[in-house]
Amino acid sequence: MDRNVAVVLSGCGYLDGAEITESVSTLIALGEEGAKVRIFAPSKSLKEVQHLSGEETGNEKNVLEESARIARGKIEDLENLDEKDFDAIILPGGFGVAKNLCDFANNGAKANVLPKLKESLLAFHQASKPIGAFCIAPALVALVLGKEGVALTIGDDKATATEIQKTGADHVECRVDDYVTDRENKVITSPAYMYEAEPHLVYKGIRSAIRELMEMA
Amino acid sequence: MDRNVAVVLSGCGYLDGAEITESVSTLIALGEEGAKVRIFAPSKSLKEVQHLSGEETGNEKNVLEESARIARGKIEDLENLDEKDFDAIILPGGFGVAKNLCDFANNGAKANVLPKLKESLLAFHQASKPIGAFCIAPALVALVLGKEGVALTIGDDKATATEIQKTGADHVECRVDDYVTDRENKVITSPAYMYEAEPHLVYKGIRSAIRELMEMA
Repeated sequence: MDRNVAVVLSGCGYLDGAEITESVSTLIALGEEGAKVRIFAPSKSLKEVQHLSGEETGNEKNVLEESARIARGKIEDLENLDEKDFDAIILPGGFGVAKNLCDFANNGAKANVLPKLKESLLAFHQASKPIGAFCIAPALVALVLGKEGVALTIGDDKATATEIQKTGADHVECRVDDYVTDRENKVITSPAYMYEAEPHLVYKGIRSAIRELMEMA
Repeated sequence: MDRNVAVVLSGCGYLDGAEITESVSTLIALGEEGAKVRIFAPSKSLKEVQHLSGEETGNEKNVLEESARIARGKIEDLENLDEKDFDAIILPGGFGVAKNLCDFANNGAKANVLPKLKESLLAFHQASKPIGAFCIAPALVALVLGKEGVALTIGDDKATATEIQKTGADHVECRVDDYVTDRENKVITSPAYMYEAEPHLVYKGIRSAIRELMEMA
């Protein structure tokens, strides 16, 4: 059975967009599992950060156009995402999730999620289709599904975990190469670069999480 | 035994820099092999390409700063690369290799290689330390080592293979998930996105090539 998975990116580069190793690990793992993948990102502006200095450049870029670097141009506007076409949805991490897909970076538990993405995640949840989220992306899932008491992980960062708990979600500590499953809510999360980790351990955590997600899809 | 490997990037995004999936696959595979990795890129300008339209924007970016997106800021100026610190060197692909590290994209077999990179590759070769190259990067290796009759692959693209043969190198056809080894010259190559391939097959080819490279290092 072919299973169709939507992947939502938030730019290209962990300081102003999607974390690159997490995004690629997601796409490799989905390919190994035989999933059919379509990639989405919102067409909106982001504030560019120079990744050597870590400082904002003052320039704006487009999230969809930057995400296209990872997707090799094979990417669609998030507005076109229809839950009915998919068996699962995955959000890799990076500050782009907390800055471009919601404003968790500034507003923590009080943050707002991009309306189209919130609507999509609720549709997947209501259809009992699995949601995968890595790194900081589980915080966005908590903003949408916290009231359901969803269990998830962003590793062991106390400050972030506290904000997540305020949404009603249950934060569970987890190692970089492992993952947390909420079977009832069908939410699978792995901490990835919430730790200062090596690429192959980030891949291992995401690879394992996606195996679990595909079994539930 | 700890083995030290230098990885040279050429930007971030296949149209104006390093191919992202190939770069990440390289870093994951090296981690799985237990290698100690340092990442390098030249500090020079590149012509930015928008990856949704495929067109040049007219803006210039810096190769080192853009490569830092993939390396999460842990990257050094190529000028600091000293062959004596390493057991092997790897060049992932992307048009950045053919535009920013040499001018193969415009000049084919008559292209020039960035002097520092040419000098480094010759130093690795003379010290009998393995050189890995993926996608279009084997063309750059051919520009440097073609006269040695080095055997390598860029897949099955006839026009590119013809230019490579003009350097004196021996082009060998190869599938996306496989690799070619020149044992005498210690050059290991895999075609990666020279094919319109899926990410997990690109990873498989690079993963296998790096296992071989580490055995020779």
